[in-house]
Amino acid sequence: MFVPEGFLFAGISCGIKKENKLDLGLVYSPYNLTAWGVFTVNTIKAAPVILGKRFIKEKEIHGVIANSGVANACTGEEGIKRALTLLKEVAKNLKISYKSLLPASTGIIGEQLPLEKILPKISHLISNLSEQNYIQFAKAIMTTDTFPKVVSKRTEEGITILGIAKGAGMIAPNMATMLAFILTDAEISKDYLKKFLPKIVEQSFNRISIDGDTSTNDTVYMLCSNIKKLKNWDNFENQCLEVAKELAYFIVKDGEGTSKVIKIIIKGAQTKNEAKILAISVANSPLVKTAFYGGDPNWGRIFSALGKTGISFNPEEVEIYLNGIPWVANLKPVKDEVKIKEELRKPEIELCMKFKKGKMSYEVLTTDLTEEYIRINAHYRS
Amino acid sequence: MFVPEGFLFAGISCGIKKENKLDLGLVYSPYNLTAWGVFTVNTIKAAPVILGKRFIKEKEIHGVIANSGVANACTGEEGIKRALTLLKEVAKNLKISYKSLLPASTGIIGEQLPLEKILPKISHLISNLSEQNYIQFAKAIMTTDTFPKVVSKRTEEGITILGIAKGAGMIAPNMATMLAFILTDAEISKDYLKKFLPKIVEQSFNRISIDGDTSTNDTVYMLCSNIKKLKNWDNFENQCLEVAKELAYFIVKDGEGTSKVIKIIIKGAQTKNEAKILAISVANSPLVKTAFYGGDPNWGRIFSALGKTGISFNPEEVEIYLNGIPWVANLKPVKDEVKIKEELRKPEIELCMKFKKGKMSYEVLTTDLTEEYIRINAHYRS
Repeated sequence: MFVPEGFLFAGISCGIKKENKLDLGLVYSPYNLTAWGVFTVNTIKAAPVILGKRFIKEKEIHGVIANSGVANACTGEEGIKRALTLLKEVAKNLKISYKSLLPASTGIIGEQLPLEKILPKISHLISNLSEQNYIQFAKAIMTTDTFPKVVSKRTEEGITILGIAKGAGMIAPNMATMLAFILTDAEISKDYLKKFLPKIVEQSFNRISIDGDTSTNDTVYMLCSNIKKLKNWDNFENQCLEVAKELAYFIVKDGEGTSKVIKIIIKGAQTKNEAKILAISVANSPLVKTAFYGGDPNWGRIFSALGKTGISFNPEEVEIYLNGIPWVANLKPVKDEVKIKEELRKPEIELCMKFKKGKMSYEVLTTDLTEEYIRINAHYRS
Repeated sequence: MFVPEGFLFAGISCGIKKENKLDLGLVYSPYNLTAWGVFTVNTIKAAPVILGKRFIKEKEIHGVIANSGVANACTGEEGIKRALTLLKEVAKNLKISYKSLLPASTGIIGEQLPLEKILPKISHLISNLSEQNYIQFAKAIMTTDTFPKVVSKRTEEGITILGIAKGAGMIAPNMATMLAFILTDAEISKDYLKKFLPKIVEQSFNRISIDGDTSTNDTVYMLCSNIKKLKNWDNFENQCLEVAKELAYFIVKDGEGTSKVIKIIIKGAQTKNEAKILAISVANSPLVKTAFYGGDPNWGRIFSALGKTGISFNPEEVEIYLNGIPWVANLKPVKDEVKIKEELRKPEIELCMKFKKGKMSYEVLTTDLTEEYIRINAHYRS
């Protein structure tokens, strides 16, 4: 795994989560970082989101402090106060301004940060900082995730991009209970980042949907240590997008109780927005998702999901492809059901619906819906 | 059970469904009925919906022919042809015009009506007609329903209203895979019905949501035999609304794999539409639904579902009531968690969220989300 220059990582256990699991993480850079963030569009914003949106505008940024177990959302003024106390304590130990630290939290909504557990561990957290502890940081932000999500790329000119994320449940277009951090040693201006980050988020994290729920805490931060001069911007941008897309894929792959990753593709729509609405309607339909789980070639449900958008189209003109194989045309299955069932059993499925209305397309990653999803979510706090 | 005068019912088995289950039903009246219908808004309309929308405008209406097992949706021209063949065969036996019969189907999408099984049974169907066979008719339209849904009321002046419905899966605002028939012996004009029926549908069948999926076949027909003069219109309208609301309740109660019926109430919203969007967001959130299933007092998920609408509000002003008991105020639980957990275990739950933005309110009935829902829907056709 390539690690960008200029960053140190830590991840420790404070007892916010049970069983000594890692639950407090720090990314720190002695350099002044160029930073930007993209945040949840949920009306209810967690305390760290409110503070993160404020501090991201500061000129001096040195890192991120993140915790799992408690989301610090729906916690009112007290939540803001506790988040600030945590920032100040970490900043004091690092001898930096507390406004140069960006906060992030994920976990149960409506509970306050247990500072009595966290504050005594801050000096331990800081002594844990090292270039190689990015895995500990990745573990410290996990909730129902079953594996830490880390991706790294190095460009031809030797610039490194490291992506770390957590996801699992409550994933919907517009980044739900998802934290992602994209770090690089490239030299980048803030003005550039402000345009670039939303663009890659739109093409990666906003193209995934597990349960249609959107959280109060979603945050993507991009941090640049400005150590290496960038020449080939195209190559760099493509690699960053790849990092974001691979993290998004891991989030879907690790979706709560998921047994399959399904890529939904709409082609031939009249407008981009129409393609998007059609894709998301299929991706979020519980009946389509359960049919995929059961390996049931119930293509009627796909048409029903397309139709419930209210978007007008002639169903006889829609062609459905499964893993590239023609499945339905002219409202009739065109392939032996045995072959289709075989394809449906695969853990990676591509479902493409071709319309004859225009030239616009849209892709979204989703999952099937399983009994395990219910089991995990029925008793999350118990 | 009161039965309105002027109607005969039949329900038989043709072998469309397995195990000799009833799957073909007929409502017939020798009188010329006043009739109107409300249909699915799904872009893809089943053949019986296309024909029903056409024939409902005819001056002479004598009844309804309905089947379960096959939805006759996504079946193209052949689907229309087969539906017409069925109508003509029944009409010929009844010696009426085929355009005076309204069709309805429910079941698997994408399969053709098996006329070779149905047509030989038509004379048997007609010989089965009787005033008391409304239960057979109700059974003949069931799919994954676990009980037939029949409600009847008699007004003070002796007018009878009988409601028969099927529902279970794919239920979402705007009536998903739901068939309902409201029959009365009152004398009513078509112009009156055209206004009245959409009004009661809006306040009953459009206020229920099980899985956010909307079907290709939803139909509500109201049929009046015009035998009894109506004087007290208010009383009649209220009783009709009661019949529709009770059927809607039964549909939710019998939702696939449902263990709880949950009434979601929004109060104090700025506009009716805002209240509706907030209510439906909570009603359709898989995370709220699984928490209710698990009896987990995870009120943070309720706030998250309210917030993901993007509607602006101050969460500290929102009060949440569970079965009338204050649960959350000022972003804090105000009741002992033991008591709340006890309430959450009940099979009927009322969740009320009071805003301080205005005076508009909205109600919707929904269900929890269970492993059983997944089990039923993963293998529906297998």
